[in-house]
Amino acid sequence: MAAATEKALEAEMNRLKLQIKTLKGEENAEDIFVGSYLLARLSELGVTSMFGVPGDFNLGFLDLVEDHPTIDWVGNCNELNASYAADGYARVKQGSVGALLTTFGVGELSATNGIAGAFSEMVPVVHIAGVPNLLQQSTKPLLHHTLGDGRYDAYTKAAEQFTYSQAILTNTYSAAAEIDRVLSDCVVQGRPVYITLPTDLAYAKISSDRLKTKNHSVIDEIVKLVEEAGGDVVVLADACSIRHDVVAELKELLHKTGYPVYCAPMGKSAVDETYERYGGIYVGSISHPEVKEKVESAKLILSIGSLKSDFNSGNFTYSIPTTRTVEARRGQAKALKLEVPPFVAHVPEEKDDIISHDWFWPRMSKFFQPKDVIVAETGTSSFGILDVPLPKDSVFLAQILWGSIGWTVGSTLGAALAAKDCNLNRTILFVGDGSLQLTVQELSTMLRKGVKPIIFVLNNSGYTIERYLHGKERKYNDIMNWKWTGLLGVLGDHDGTLSKSYTVNNKYELTELLENEKFASADVLQLVEVMMPKLDAPRALKVQAELSGKTNQYALAL
Amino acid sequence: MAAATEKALEAEMNRLKLQIKTLKGEENAEDIFVGSYLLARLSELGVTSMFGVPGDFNLGFLDLVEDHPTIDWVGNCNELNASYAADGYARVKQGSVGALLTTFGVGELSATNGIAGAFSEMVPVVHIAGVPNLLQQSTKPLLHHTLGDGRYDAYTKAAEQFTYSQAILTNTYSAAAEIDRVLSDCVVQGRPVYITLPTDLAYAKISSDRLKTKNHSVIDEIVKLVEEAGGDVVVLADACSIRHDVVAELKELLHKTGYPVYCAPMGKSAVDETYERYGGIYVGSISHPEVKEKVESAKLILSIGSLKSDFNSGNFTYSIPTTRTVEARRGQAKALKLEVPPFVAHVPEEKDDIISHDWFWPRMSKFFQPKDVIVAETGTSSFGILDVPLPKDSVFLAQILWGSIGWTVGSTLGAALAAKDCNLNRTILFVGDGSLQLTVQELSTMLRKGVKPIIFVLNNSGYTIERYLHGKERKYNDIMNWKWTGLLGVLGDHDGTLSKSYTVNNKYELTELLENEKFASADVLQLVEVMMPKLDAPRALKVQAELSGKTNQYALAL
Repeated sequence: MAAATEKALEAEMNRLKLQIKTLKGEENAEDIFVGSYLLARLSELGVTSMFGVPGDFNLGFLDLVEDHPTIDWVGNCNELNASYAADGYARVKQGSVGALLTTFGVGELSATNGIAGAFSEMVPVVHIAGVPNLLQQSTKPLLHHTLGDGRYDAYTKAAEQFTYSQAILTNTYSAAAEIDRVLSDCVVQGRPVYITLPTDLAYAKISSDRLKTKNHSVIDEIVKLVEEAGGDVVVLADACSIRHDVVAELKELLHKTGYPVYCAPMGKSAVDETYERYGGIYVGSISHPEVKEKVESAKLILSIGSLKSDFNSGNFTYSIPTTRTVEARRGQAKALKLEVPPFVAHVPEEKDDIISHDWFWPRMSKFFQPKDVIVAETGTSSFGILDVPLPKDSVFLAQILWGSIGWTVGSTLGAALAAKDCNLNRTILFVGDGSLQLTVQELSTMLRKGVKPIIFVLNNSGYTIERYLHGKERKYNDIMNWKWTGLLGVLGDHDGTLSKSYTVNNKYELTELLENEKFASADVLQLVEVMMPKLDAPRALKVQAELSGKTNQYALAL
Repeated sequence: MAAATEKALEAEMNRLKLQIKTLKGEENAEDIFVGSYLLARLSELGVTSMFGVPGDFNLGFLDLVEDHPTIDWVGNCNELNASYAADGYARVKQGSVGALLTTFGVGELSATNGIAGAFSEMVPVVHIAGVPNLLQQSTKPLLHHTLGDGRYDAYTKAAEQFTYSQAILTNTYSAAAEIDRVLSDCVVQGRPVYITLPTDLAYAKISSDRLKTKNHSVIDEIVKLVEEAGGDVVVLADACSIRHDVVAELKELLHKTGYPVYCAPMGKSAVDETYERYGGIYVGSISHPEVKEKVESAKLILSIGSLKSDFNSGNFTYSIPTTRTVEARRGQAKALKLEVPPFVAHVPEEKDDIISHDWFWPRMSKFFQPKDVIVAETGTSSFGILDVPLPKDSVFLAQILWGSIGWTVGSTLGAALAAKDCNLNRTILFVGDGSLQLTVQELSTMLRKGVKPIIFVLNNSGYTIERYLHGKERKYNDIMNWKWTGLLGVLGDHDGTLSKSYTVNNKYELTELLENEKFASADVLQLVEVMMPKLDAPRALKVQAELSGKTNQYALAL
């Protein structure tokens, strides 16, 4: 018997068993649909929003989502944006996960970049793909959304590259355990996972017994490490201290010990930036000289959750002992009261009224309020914001390692929804005109879901970060100039009641706007087009570009 | 010695050799950059537009593109749209290929769905990813755009799933041969291929000798098959007759033999639809009864380039002998002059003035002109257009197998650019409001590149095709209603000179517009919002949905 026939028969047998079980199950009030089990587990993890796009292989499951009492379906404009939104949601809602639902092939593959970014940046996102029914999975007909050659496993093979673990659901016997396994991985590892849900299996019944056991486990390795540490040290907080959910423990450590503390770019906001012992951002040789000296001259640096990527480490220019060595030396000396120059940003006096980066970021810093969620796009924004302090209990989102432009737009939608759940303050996005064009349609979903971020669009006529890296005057770094203030009207705010849009051309206009209480209260979605010179950039970006240029040369430097 | 160290040393050695070769090369006037060699080969294949988004690992190569005399850089708004555009370009420009340039990780992964679609639908697209330099490839530092775990080959592993072949360029010795190998695959197989181009290797010099040999090879298997055929037959033309470039040979066959000819949906426009022996579209049991009878009662069906996917075959309801059997019977009888009822579409008389699908598609058919390029989005458009004849020498684009919504928007940009090269007429797009939201920003690139398609936006308040499949009144099939006529102004047509937008609410308004000569001349980019009832659909979609519903059930049908 050919292997394919055998497989088909086996699948048919499983289907019949499943039907019998389902029939029996109907008499058992405690049995639930596989789809409902999955939703129960997500709800238990604190998921209140599910992102994605409907498609014919997930429509049945979507009925369950739409009818769920505590999970809200956020239909996105496309799957990449949806994956970014799930990522942003998970970053803000510590301890929970982002949930993404797509359809077989066309939908799931559009989210590839977003999921890979969540892997790279260690964000827990559950990617559920609705797939053909079990018989189709086995007989592999030439369905739409297939590659035309019967390779039904190609999408899973791609997903294996970018997710920590995968649950390819094929029967009712293991479905619940498989779901639990990958959800546990997602939380513990802080990485995306992948679940395929066949159309029929979503509605197959299984016992709800497992739901009696909580699925949430916590890692406290880092907590232990931190609690055992001591001595003559400064603390350097980085990405993983946020991702692995030890922000509270870190705070406790800092207050108990009085250690001076600095953050790497990806660790920004892990420490309250108004804290008196907080010294600012350390980025290797890109750091402010004062910060650089203080960090590098300390006898011991306690590095928490270090992630030394190029953009996170001043292009690998840390002049300190390796992280591993430092983290190994625990519980040594007592805390010395090392001097910490305060981390403040002065708004410079400039002769002209042009909005420069040197002026803009310190000025914005004064606009921030406690508990604001602040999102900065890769480019001038993510570099510019490094040099200014953020307020107490604020949350900072940027994609320093993965660096996919356009990410913040979807991400801001997710962050704003999560911020509601967490009783946070305003959500504020900084994005360049070039980046916003990649994912712009998601502003429409913001209008539809009633979230009210303040969006600063830095209009500097193209890809300025790239101009600094290469091709300063090249046409390929130019983009179409959009009429940004007309955008929200077109994307759904027909009568102008859902949003407001502004253009600010100079320091005076921006200052006036920032000082307007109505504006600052963020009672509607607001978009501010900030006119900036094409070739201006924040200090940190200029230095980074110079360093990148040296290693990333295009011709062979002989 | 650890394998990693050995590899690093080897890479370093290769680099040094390459440097020596480069130094020597400078004395040889015939040596050219690897990047230039690649462009020379693409140019030879007729490529005049390259699609993509700049990123720091492709900026150096982009200098060569921007300076190339015959290849124009089309900077897209995002990579998915760019991959769609490359696909549309390749479909229209028979014999050439689509060219796509992205950057490492973030860029290339955003194009995954577009490339997989080109694989599925057999479209020759060359995907070039700019990647880190050779030393970085070997030492694998924690660069931005990486997964953070040193797996530099993860993106290639994903690409292997969706491209026919891959050229991972690592040295000057094999670069030219590797490029030639995959470009040849691309043309011969009609499938996408993948090339990784390290930043330094793009500027390494190699001999231009190989350029003296033309790289273009042609398959004529199908041609032979067709020429040997004969007898009492009808011809059924399908997708592969277009993809494998035998349209001209097919025409010759038809005229020599006088065989009646029908097309499958994916073969639409392979045969001139005004041809007197052309009978219309055959889609299994979804066919018009008259067409179904004629095809299925013929003694022999000569099936050219068959691709029996669900949406292309009326959900697998062909009532004819298998393709293979039919294709095997060659050169048998003489052509009998079987009767062919003409393929015409009558505009029905309807009582009300609402724009129904039954009325819309026959009416549009009268608007079409010879040599028009007609693009139909998956959904009501791709189903609606099946029932109406297209004019002589028109080109029809739809994604019947892959069916990724939003595809037509990028695709239309590519198609319109290719149409210029091929001296074709207007480019006309039919897209639903739901689908257009996925990829809408590419309208901006159309404005920037000065192409002037006519875009009919079927505004039926959401995902109508999905309402027919499942969840007719579900909220998840709703979308935000956009102000479509304001869109082009926001996306770059600041003074209204580059475009015109219209809304038509009824048959009268649409007829008046279609009869306007200025409108029909397509002298600017035009967008027409066509108001249609939410739950109206073309005949073929209604039948398809009914058939899909039977096989694609969500609950187990016991």
